[in-house]
Amino acid sequence: MGRWEPNARGRLEQAAMELYGERGYEQTTVAEIANRAGLTERTFFRHFADKREVLFWGGGALQELLVSSVADAPESTAPIDAVAAAFEGAGARLQERREHSRQRQAIITANAELRERELIKLASFASALADALRRRGVADTAASLAAEVGIAVFRVAFERWIDTGQPDFPQLIRESFDELKVVTGHGRRRDLDR
Amino acid sequence: MGRWEPNARGRLEQAAMELYGERGYEQTTVAEIANRAGLTERTFFRHFADKREVLFWGGGALQELLVSSVADAPESTAPIDAVAAAFEGAGARLQERREHSRQRQAIITANAELRERELIKLASFASALADALRRRGVADTAASLAAEVGIAVFRVAFERWIDTGQPDFPQLIRESFDELKVVTGHGRRRDLDR
Repeated sequence: MGRWEPNARGRLEQAAMELYGERGYEQTTVAEIANRAGLTERTFFRHFADKREVLFWGGGALQELLVSSVADAPESTAPIDAVAAAFEGAGARLQERREHSRQRQAIITANAELRERELIKLASFASALADALRRRGVADTAASLAAEVGIAVFRVAFERWIDTGQPDFPQLIRESFDELKVVTGHGRRRDLDR
Repeated sequence: MGRWEPNARGRLEQAAMELYGERGYEQTTVAEIANRAGLTERTFFRHFADKREVLFWGGGALQELLVSSVADAPESTAPIDAVAAAFEGAGARLQERREHSRQRQAIITANAELRERELIKLASFASALADALRRRGVADTAASLAAEVGIAVFRVAFERWIDTGQPDFPQLIRESFDELKVVTGHGRRRDLDR
């Protein structure tokens, strides 16, 4: 008990993802996860509050990345471009674990409670991004719009990334923000830009 | 039993909204709602599946309104403008019951389960709008973007409507879609338009 287990967290996460995929999230117990990872339940609870946290622990770090990216953008950067750059950075981070993201999305899609939790997470991202923009002096409504719209564009890019197998997620994010400008009636298509 | 109660549905809804506001949604029982309305539980369950449905029964009709508005837009209308017009129509409908919308929003904001349910409802709107755009021949990604971004803009406009006391919700929606064009770097401000 309490002895150091090499990469316990990673092993627990992998075991959990496998079981959620095989049996469904709801049917999987913490005891089974620990067992599959060759660890104890006690070790599980040193790393995760519950079985849901295995799927959501990365959200806090991602939100911080988004917020600090907006805060660090050059002063002349337009709000929507600061948001786009923040998501490109988040996309680069997520891309390091593409297969994990794909599995995670499938698990979440299959469970109503998890879908709801994921929407809450994205709403929290939007709210944090809007606050970061306001701290840059962006007016209230423009800040909310850029943040909420940014989340919407990111969701669409994420789905394309998972569904199409296109490997470059940051590029997909960039293209989707370009496409946003086309959709709102004013952008130029990327292929015409070159 | 079973006799006709004048405006039972409206009375139950009003009683429920009052109680959710006074005691909180979770603390209110169907028996209390029926009692406040001077009706029986049995009558309640002829009108609503459960106490949550009192807050969400209008969602289906609103979604149909959005979808049919997009379907009926003139062929030349750009996707984002079809979406904007659909939300203007929805805004006009909601405006008929501004105080109800305000109360409902306060009740939902105070309860995690209801917040989650509301996000699911909006995600369903986005998905239905994207499908309606695809049926107009809009490309897959552009359809998803216009729909998801439309929901984002609508949410921002809704918050302004509730928070500011500005009475004209359709106009707020119009302004927010105009502001979207400014935020994406290409629109003209409405005040410059005049």
